[in-house]
Amino acid sequence: MRTIGIDIGGTEIKAGIVDDTGAILRASRRDSEPRDPEELIRRVVELVDELSGDAPVGALGIGVPGLIAAGTGTLLRAPNMPGIDGTNLGDRIGGETGLPTLIRNDADLNAWGEFRAGAGIGTRHMICLTVGTGLGSGMIIGGQLHAGATGYGAEAGHIVVEPGGRSCGCGGQGCLETIVSATGIVARASDRIRSGEPTILVEAGLTAQKVHDAAAGGDAVALAVYSEVGRFLGIGCATLMNLVNPELIAIGGGVSAAGDLLLGPAIKEARHRAYPEVFAACRIEQARLGVEAGVVGAGLLAAEMVPERRTD
Amino acid sequence: MRTIGIDIGGTEIKAGIVDDTGAILRASRRDSEPRDPEELIRRVVELVDELSGDAPVGALGIGVPGLIAAGTGTLLRAPNMPGIDGTNLGDRIGGETGLPTLIRNDADLNAWGEFRAGAGIGTRHMICLTVGTGLGSGMIIGGQLHAGATGYGAEAGHIVVEPGGRSCGCGGQGCLETIVSATGIVARASDRIRSGEPTILVEAGLTAQKVHDAAAGGDAVALAVYSEVGRFLGIGCATLMNLVNPELIAIGGGVSAAGDLLLGPAIKEARHRAYPEVFAACRIEQARLGVEAGVVGAGLLAAEMVPERRTD
Repeated sequence: MRTIGIDIGGTEIKAGIVDDTGAILRASRRDSEPRDPEELIRRVVELVDELSGDAPVGALGIGVPGLIAAGTGTLLRAPNMPGIDGTNLGDRIGGETGLPTLIRNDADLNAWGEFRAGAGIGTRHMICLTVGTGLGSGMIIGGQLHAGATGYGAEAGHIVVEPGGRSCGCGGQGCLETIVSATGIVARASDRIRSGEPTILVEAGLTAQKVHDAAAGGDAVALAVYSEVGRFLGIGCATLMNLVNPELIAIGGGVSAAGDLLLGPAIKEARHRAYPEVFAACRIEQARLGVEAGVVGAGLLAAEMVPERRTD
Repeated sequence: MRTIGIDIGGTEIKAGIVDDTGAILRASRRDSEPRDPEELIRRVVELVDELSGDAPVGALGIGVPGLIAAGTGTLLRAPNMPGIDGTNLGDRIGGETGLPTLIRNDADLNAWGEFRAGAGIGTRHMICLTVGTGLGSGMIIGGQLHAGATGYGAEAGHIVVEPGGRSCGCGGQGCLETIVSATGIVARASDRIRSGEPTILVEAGLTAQKVHDAAAGGDAVALAVYSEVGRFLGIGCATLMNLVNPELIAIGGGVSAAGDLLLGPAIKEARHRAYPEVFAACRIEQARLGVEAGVVGAGLLAAEMVPERRTD
């Protein structure tokens, strides 16, 4: 079945027609509208109309950057979309498009995309961490996307790795996301710049990309930041391994483009901390679908909820 | 179906005939034999013979204090049973008794007992922490006992809560078990005694029970230790809640007899750290089956693996 997958972010809405294999047959995008729910819904419906013009699609899957409680389509806790919080996007968009519509957390759908069509093909138990501005995650257990008791799924960004650490946007403190994220990278680099360590980095306008580029160029401060952040990623991976015993932890999101700069220290730290048998059973590697993971996962998971229409 | 549940520990082997409701109809026990596999197997088989003399049983479930790899009956990583490590107890005992035999980690079976017949009745997603000498755990997801990719299940005792903390028996460092366990309680109390804080506790022959009794009597050092350990239990619970979104975290094992002394600070800390929606969806409470949880869980899980013989 062909479906439409949509990934709603704070700055952009990505959409695509997705086939059974997870291939994107046609794609489109719009600027996002994080404050006005009516305008956001209009843009999503416009994308669906544009993409479904040529050939019928069977379902619509939508990823959003926040929590969706089980059995509802209402977006909660979406700090990057302050105006949309509390809107039942699922019912509204489903109603306007007339398509069976599934709505889930974006990192859950990234994980489903990687599981079905990316780094996780062939596994039954895997976790996908999406390291961008924050740290999202999704968990596949026994071939099923983990939803939890009330649909909030697996928020690995909010496992506690440094009890006395920085305050987190979730209200907690020392969550993995406070360190392993673009925000965390910038915060750690800023600390080092301010303490006067010699570096080519400057605090004004600092981004994780700039820290990455400096590290790639051999800057000692930038290298130390990536090594530290990678080490905490490894601490998080050890916790995930010991608790879930997965076959794979896939690391996606913009920050994962750093590759070995991040994964090298992460794997070393996880090896030191996880049960040897559990570590031996689990790969830690980069996700494969890149920025399209959310669209692919949304399309593939939407297909699962609609019974296949047989054509034979 | 009636089954036999057996809980093999480092000092004692507990056994019972378990019915469909999780009631123990008849119980017996032997001293354990942590060094000699042949003698251990002999005692287990003797217990089975003794209990199954009256009425036939359909299956045998066995809990052991270590890892059991999926699809094998071999005990691994059993620090309290050094001589048994590497023995295929499942095949040997199954062969000698002629009963369909299931063997699993003891904390997994405690969790299954609590899920089916204790604090977790009516839930679909729960975690049971067994706080004794160490910290064992089992996790129920969607009504299934979580096994993981290679059968090692959920080792919540080895989630990392203090990256620079004490060395753990697993080879890691700062695992939850290094703090939230009888061993952790004694270690923290000893630190405070040695630093000269006024207390009725003395370091020689110190046990978690003595720290508990002193706390119950108002000793400031003992109270501080329980409050600290409870706080870390809460940090662990927050991680488990955010990652798994369960309905219940049940706290069992000998140390859990401390009740509110431990659970009070744990609940307070988890409330501070977990997502509010996730915290609101989850109870943290004492397990209900006490020391029999392992026997009950072993019997009930064994019953699940054998098709019911209909008598109508």
